[in-house]
Amino acid sequence: MRVIGVDPGSVICGYGVVERTGKRYQLIEYGVIKAKAAGEALPLRCRMIYTRLQQVIERSLPDEMALESLFYAKNVASVIKLSHARGAAMLSGAMREIPVIEYSPKEVKRAVTGRGGADKKQVQFMVRDMLGIEETHEFYDATDALAVAICHLNKVHSPLGRPRSWKQFIEEHPDRIVGSKPRKNS
Amino acid sequence: MRVIGVDPGSVICGYGVVERTGKRYQLIEYGVIKAKAAGEALPLRCRMIYTRLQQVIERSLPDEMALESLFYAKNVASVIKLSHARGAAMLSGAMREIPVIEYSPKEVKRAVTGRGGADKKQVQFMVRDMLGIEETHEFYDATDALAVAICHLNKVHSPLGRPRSWKQFIEEHPDRIVGSKPRKNS
Repeated sequence: MRVIGVDPGSVICGYGVVERTGKRYQLIEYGVIKAKAAGEALPLRCRMIYTRLQQVIERSLPDEMALESLFYAKNVASVIKLSHARGAAMLSGAMREIPVIEYSPKEVKRAVTGRGGADKKQVQFMVRDMLGIEETHEFYDATDALAVAICHLNKVHSPLGRPRSWKQFIEEHPDRIVGSKPRKNS
Repeated sequence: MRVIGVDPGSVICGYGVVERTGKRYQLIEYGVIKAKAAGEALPLRCRMIYTRLQQVIERSLPDEMALESLFYAKNVASVIKLSHARGAAMLSGAMREIPVIEYSPKEVKRAVTGRGGADKKQVQFMVRDMLGIEETHEFYDATDALAVAICHLNKVHSPLGRPRSWKQFIEEHPDRIVGSKPRKNS
């Protein structure tokens, strides 16, 4: 099973595609989508995220998309910008019929490092170790995106390997679908 | 000049296309995009808004898109959902190279009724009167979307009729572009 993890930001959006075969994790590709300028207009920003993620999905053909859930406590203006960017990111999955699932930052950190309170450096260290990445990526957003993908691959135990439709996926994972029901962070 | 106004909601999204020739306003089309269920997953909701607005844009060929700006005071959970939907809506314009401009609810009400504090019924009445709409639409979202389009057509005084590119539009209206700079509600 192959998963694209996305860490959408309104300035930098990280992405990473990971394949799991049995207990083996393999890196397919990863990178960041940077805004041309910090003040770039939001519609253009959404377009860049959407277009670039579509390209990644087209060439890497992931089965599912995993996103970090939004941390509500940030200031409202940034939450609004971030949510527009997230809308564009999840749309890039939904337009390809790829289920989009979200995980809290704590879940992601725990899945990768064993500790919900791990810092970004520790997450990056573990991700690089698991996937055999030699270089240190300039941005944590890229390794954070890979961490979300790994988290999802860890958590999903589908005997079929992948769900065959949105409908089936929602039936099997009613609590995992973004926006369906409020879920407590665990 | 032809403008598509959009009133994006996470459950109901209104849209309306209006053309202005001199002082004459002409209704091209309007309607709403409803979620299949109130609890529909956000990626599917974004996909429906994006796909349907793309269809409207393809057949009505607007020059620009106008949106109502977000009212920050709502509760954060709804602002987040709404912003995802808005991201999908503005993306449908940006993917077609259509400039996306926003107006505060007050500006829209003032443009249509002369009063920033007008209620939805008054807005609907004025919109129906201006565009010669006989039926009362079931949803205010549709007439609200038409009101945003009318507001934009009122405010834009471009001697060229329409801006020829995003770059030019941004140069001419630096304060009107969504997400570029915070703007005071007027």
